[in-house]
Amino acid sequence: MASYQPTKNDRFAFGLWTIMNTGRDPFGMETRSTMNGLDVISELGRRHVYAFELHAEDLVPADASASDRDRILAEARRRMADENIVCVNCGANVFSHPVFKDGALTSHDPKVRQLAMQRYLNAIDIGRELGCNLCDLWWGRDGAEVDAAKNPIEAYKWLREGLNYLQGYIDKQGYIGHRLAIEPKPNEPRGDTYLPTVGHALGLIATLDKPENCGLVVEIAHSRMAGLNAYHDLAQPLESGKLFGCHLNGQKPLRYDQDLRFGAEDLKESFFVVKLLEDHMWDGPRTFDAHAYRTADRDEVWDFVEGCMRTYLLLKEKVRRFNADPEIQAILKDLRSGSAEKLPTYEDLQKASFDWDALARRKLHHERLDQLTQELLLGVG
Amino acid sequence: MASYQPTKNDRFAFGLWTIMNTGRDPFGMETRSTMNGLDVISELGRRHVYAFELHAEDLVPADASASDRDRILAEARRRMADENIVCVNCGANVFSHPVFKDGALTSHDPKVRQLAMQRYLNAIDIGRELGCNLCDLWWGRDGAEVDAAKNPIEAYKWLREGLNYLQGYIDKQGYIGHRLAIEPKPNEPRGDTYLPTVGHALGLIATLDKPENCGLVVEIAHSRMAGLNAYHDLAQPLESGKLFGCHLNGQKPLRYDQDLRFGAEDLKESFFVVKLLEDHMWDGPRTFDAHAYRTADRDEVWDFVEGCMRTYLLLKEKVRRFNADPEIQAILKDLRSGSAEKLPTYEDLQKASFDWDALARRKLHHERLDQLTQELLLGVG
Amino acid sequence: MASYQPTKNDRFAFGLWTIMNTGRDPFGMETRSTMNGLDVISELGRRHVYAFELHAEDLVPADASASDRDRILAEARRRMADENIVCVNCGANVFSHPVFKDGALTSHDPKVRQLAMQRYLNAIDIGRELGCNLCDLWWGRDGAEVDAAKNPIEAYKWLREGLNYLQGYIDKQGYIGHRLAIEPKPNEPRGDTYLPTVGHALGLIATLDKPENCGLVVEIAHSRMAGLNAYHDLAQPLESGKLFGCHLNGQKPLRYDQDLRFGAEDLKESFFVVKLLEDHMWDGPRTFDAHAYRTADRDEVWDFVEGCMRTYLLLKEKVRRFNADPEIQAILKDLRSGSAEKLPTYEDLQKASFDWDALARRKLHHERLDQLTQELLLGVG
Amino acid sequence: MASYQPTKNDRFAFGLWTIMNTGRDPFGMETRSTMNGLDVISELGRRHVYAFELHAEDLVPADASASDRDRILAEARRRMADENIVCVNCGANVFSHPVFKDGALTSHDPKVRQLAMQRYLNAIDIGRELGCNLCDLWWGRDGAEVDAAKNPIEAYKWLREGLNYLQGYIDKQGYIGHRLAIEPKPNEPRGDTYLPTVGHALGLIATLDKPENCGLVVEIAHSRMAGLNAYHDLAQPLESGKLFGCHLNGQKPLRYDQDLRFGAEDLKESFFVVKLLEDHMWDGPRTFDAHAYRTADRDEVWDFVEGCMRTYLLLKEKVRRFNADPEIQAILKDLRSGSAEKLPTYEDLQKASFDWDALARRKLHHERLDQLTQELLLGVG
Repeated sequence: MASYQPTKNDRFAFGLWTIMNTGRDPFGMETRSTMNGLDVISELGRRHVYAFELHAEDLVPADASASDRDRILAEARRRMADENIVCVNCGANVFSHPVFKDGALTSHDPKVRQLAMQRYLNAIDIGRELGCNLCDLWWGRDGAEVDAAKNPIEAYKWLREGLNYLQGYIDKQGYIGHRLAIEPKPNEPRGDTYLPTVGHALGLIATLDKPENCGLVVEIAHSRMAGLNAYHDLAQPLESGKLFGCHLNGQKPLRYDQDLRFGAEDLKESFFVVKLLEDHMWDGPRTFDAHAYRTADRDEVWDFVEGCMRTYLLLKEKVRRFNADPEIQAILKDLRSGSAEKLPTYEDLQKASFDWDALARRKLHHERLDQLTQELLLGVG
Repeated sequence: MASYQPTKNDRFAFGLWTIMNTGRDPFGMETRSTMNGLDVISELGRRHVYAFELHAEDLVPADASASDRDRILAEARRRMADENIVCVNCGANVFSHPVFKDGALTSHDPKVRQLAMQRYLNAIDIGRELGCNLCDLWWGRDGAEVDAAKNPIEAYKWLREGLNYLQGYIDKQGYIGHRLAIEPKPNEPRGDTYLPTVGHALGLIATLDKPENCGLVVEIAHSRMAGLNAYHDLAQPLESGKLFGCHLNGQKPLRYDQDLRFGAEDLKESFFVVKLLEDHMWDGPRTFDAHAYRTADRDEVWDFVEGCMRTYLLLKEKVRRFNADPEIQAILKDLRSGSAEKLPTYEDLQKASFDWDALARRKLHHERLDQLTQELLLGVG
Repeated sequence: MASYQPTKNDRFAFGLWTIMNTGRDPFGMETRSTMNGLDVISELGRRHVYAFELHAEDLVPADASASDRDRILAEARRRMADENIVCVNCGANVFSHPVFKDGALTSHDPKVRQLAMQRYLNAIDIGRELGCNLCDLWWGRDGAEVDAAKNPIEAYKWLREGLNYLQGYIDKQGYIGHRLAIEPKPNEPRGDTYLPTVGHALGLIATLDKPENCGLVVEIAHSRMAGLNAYHDLAQPLESGKLFGCHLNGQKPLRYDQDLRFGAEDLKESFFVVKLLEDHMWDGPRTFDAHAYRTADRDEVWDFVEGCMRTYLLLKEKVRRFNADPEIQAILKDLRSGSAEKLPTYEDLQKASFDWDALARRKLHHERLDQLTQELLLGVG
Repeated sequence: MASYQPTKNDRFAFGLWTIMNTGRDPFGMETRSTMNGLDVISELGRRHVYAFELHAEDLVPADASASDRDRILAEARRRMADENIVCVNCGANVFSHPVFKDGALTSHDPKVRQLAMQRYLNAIDIGRELGCNLCDLWWGRDGAEVDAAKNPIEAYKWLREGLNYLQGYIDKQGYIGHRLAIEPKPNEPRGDTYLPTVGHALGLIATLDKPENCGLVVEIAHSRMAGLNAYHDLAQPLESGKLFGCHLNGQKPLRYDQDLRFGAEDLKESFFVVKLLEDHMWDGPRTFDAHAYRTADRDEVWDFVEGCMRTYLLLKEKVRRFNADPEIQAILKDLRSGSAEKLPTYEDLQKASFDWDALARRKLHHERLDQLTQELLLGVG
């Protein structure tokens, strides 16, 4: 009998920014106070969260002195040790300040591109000091509303140049095992982002100097903002060894970025996401990148935190039952019978004749299988 | 003064299926007769169309005898010579017959996968006999509504296996210069297609045995069905040498596949598509993959054909003016001044200090530039 | 303990066309045979279905002779009596034949508008003979891709004229209790339909000669195709006495019309739909308007039928538990405490002073409440 | 020859908030300073803008003393007289402060609903003092993410009660000619707004005590956020006398609220919007509700302002040409020939026989007509 209480072994993680969120939106002011990043680390650790992610600036302000920086990082490490929580990703905030208003890595202004690079070098260093080995790049503003202003071909070159430059730094520093990841998003805050989907990021990665060292952080909400199937969007990079991280949350398709509690929308897709990660024993942290509703106060943020983890565990138990369900497994066995058969030689294939109509009559049981899945999710039978 | 009359030098192409379309849709019957593929070739050629694309089955029925096949192809070649029209792409129809109801390359049934492969070998052969060197794969039904039924990871492996198998055939036959292309689409007729966007296809291609021989056919409507920017979607493969073909048409974003006349929706995006192809002197055919409205009769199909080509030429002239417009070019020069500056050494960058606020104040002229673009499109000033 | 077996008392209904569907789509041929409408009636009745809906043409071809018509209707009534199944809605098919290619009630051609009206008069008569008192109008093709061609203002006038004309016929015939309903849909098969949502239909109804006699048939999938909340879309007409029928099904938002099994997408929204109908004891039939996946064969269509009804019953039991759940009800009681307080006089209100910050601090429990709902749906706790 | 320079006679208007916008968004800080509302009035007036709209709070802070309030309004009137600019709409800001975090008119808390009402009474009074006769209600936060928390049926009752209460105040005060308008929006900042579209608002209005005194302010971007055709969305209320205001802007469909310069997206739809207002000689102000790109600085906001007006004038000239174009008008005449024919008596209609196939063959010229429209927009021919 599953208890649905999170433990460190569940490897749950949260972005610091998710707890620090104040509820500000384009049409309204903060509805709750923010929280100090160091306190977030401690509190997450106490709540059995395994790890956190951060933008370096969530802890260390961009204009902090060297000594302030070191003091903050020392304090962070102390808190991490006290509450047995680790850091799994440190990126940079290159989207909030007006200097990045037309992009970071793809700004026309070389000084802005350099400033963004400086922030990323800083993030890699800080991540290193906090013991993590991933730098996730969500550059948010690298996109356009006015296509007359920028040639996307130039933008792709700058993105590639930037990623190669960061890789060179990792190599030069001898940061063994440190990796880069792209976190794509289709739009918002820009009209159209240059790498809008998981696929577009995979396409760019294939053209890097060291493609093997750059992967993806796939965020469910970002896939759903493009109307895509988040389960499929996690599966493609997983299949090719490119799933370096995941951001679990909820989102109604094709509208503004909602960043809802994991599972709050589309239980079935959420179930298949959990099934993918668990069935394939993916070894990364299960990171939640979302925030409490704007209607929540500071206390209720913890309801949001508990809800994310608990829903994951509930769905994980559903996965176990799905994999053990006799009727479901019988259908799957039938569907897959013979499916591993290999392709014949070209000569044999060209001579082969097929009974099209007989093949077309094969029963696929999709209605029954989907119904069984829904009933399993509903906890019946 | 531009004449806007198409010539063979404009390298326009149409899919045979676009002219053969009868207006049938999920809620209604045919509104016009179909047309014989051979007659379509002749008529397109007469109308100054440079080339055509086809599914092999558009000309040669899947159950044609060997002699019928040869007779049809001979007749096609004769018509092509008579009207000075070439073939630039031959794919296979692996989506219409019920045998492909759950996919072609990703069917669980190995016989269905083999049948699809047989159709593609046939398409490559026929394409060869018609003088083309591209096999575009739109496999339409390789997707899912019921994620319980199929593991997408297995689907990606089948897609890879299939593409590698086809490449092996090209190599074995010594079909020098023949290439493969994926034509992605997010959904319809399946709930979610396995390679939903240009990016996802680029990602898979990077994992093929011979990635250099497989590229993309990018269709505007398919990008817009995912809410993506079609101009960006053409630019990314173009930048990395992967744009093997384009399908130009119109589409309201995020709804059923409309396949409207090129330019019928979103003149600005259509303009940037033309600008991309022309500015970069892309050397492929400008193929239109769309069809006349269901309200059009057989005669009006030719209005649709003329409209596609004429709008392209109108926009090409706008591109010329954009590139010659003093105010636009002055803004672009200002935006790009210094943009080619290289990244400094890591040491220099880490020591550099930036005046964030001064950099943030740089004027970007986006409102003015977009307004100038719109006015140029409107033919004012 | 709920049995989840449908009974006549559950008042489930299906459209005849949902069972007759053959799986044909824009890219492929039929995957299963159709079924005679009379046999559908019998088979639905045997499966504990309470009622059916139809287009008159589903039973009686448009070109049937008077004697054929009468014979078919007599046979239908016999089958209805035999299997204890009633008819609850009879509309007309004014979308399949090419004559309606540019609309039925909004065709420019007055003869086409008259033909559509003739079909509706026929549908009202046939519905009367089958014992139903509703004529649902889904006119499908009343929309546009080319806004240059038709003035929407003229279209609204024709829609109003048509509805008034039909009402006049009902009155003239003395068809006591017979009512009209509009079934809105945003697009497909037309680029944009003239009454795209529930709201737009409500707006037009308010301008009819007898607005009290015309209401809505709300279809979940149609609301979701516009990205709207189907629960809200059912609630608004219910609140104003305008919910004359509902079409329950499933749909991924903002894509082609999928018509999936009820509950197949978005369990939470489906739950609230059931909760609305049950809590408010809405007395209409629970009609399913969907069809089996194209991958289903003729037998599997019945899996689809069973699934729709079973999921409704499962969710109805969840509603009972939600309404009995102590923690959920305690939160709702807290949220609603004082909510019925009336607005003061204008003088009192203008003098009143409010403690904005104190009011802003009121706890809303949304994270907890949504999590409890999800866990109830998942069958935990 | 049109000059495209705005004059007071063009009746252009802007919301004060559109100029005051600072570029803040969910992911970033202000990129430009704000501007005092009084200065906006003066500057708009100087630039030949006919009128402005406002939220009362744009000029008079919610906590202003009575004397400050009177002083500000006196100053506003002085500026209005100086620059010959009038006020055409005054609403209330009931969305920015956290007190409205779960809605204004639909908050569970009666004190919050009363506070919102107090703000609206204030807005009506201030509007009166500024000489306008419209109170536009965009209540922004009246929606939900958590449907468990609030019954939409209750929400509709509160919205109705609130509108009736405001109408009662207008009557009691004897504010002759003052009217109310609803400005619907589908989502953002709430997951789902209770009156998401123009239609839903029309539906609610029909149930008010004085429906004739409440209408719509239709915003193009809000229609496009629901994937709807903004031209149709303006036409329906115009046809029934319910178009009390319009908010002109640009928006890519089905994504976050962009509020782009009028015409920046979809020239064709923008053209038909202008055509509708001009052909029907709609007598309301042409109000722009949008803001400059976040990449614009304070100066460039005026490029945005000029662009909105100039594009309207450019499209108005295109309307004139469309209405004078011989080929376009010949097609329209042909399409409309006979279209005014009246419906026959029921007896005659039931006896009538129609030649379905002949009617189906009527030529509709849609491809040609849309192409001509596009070419006219492009300024060719």
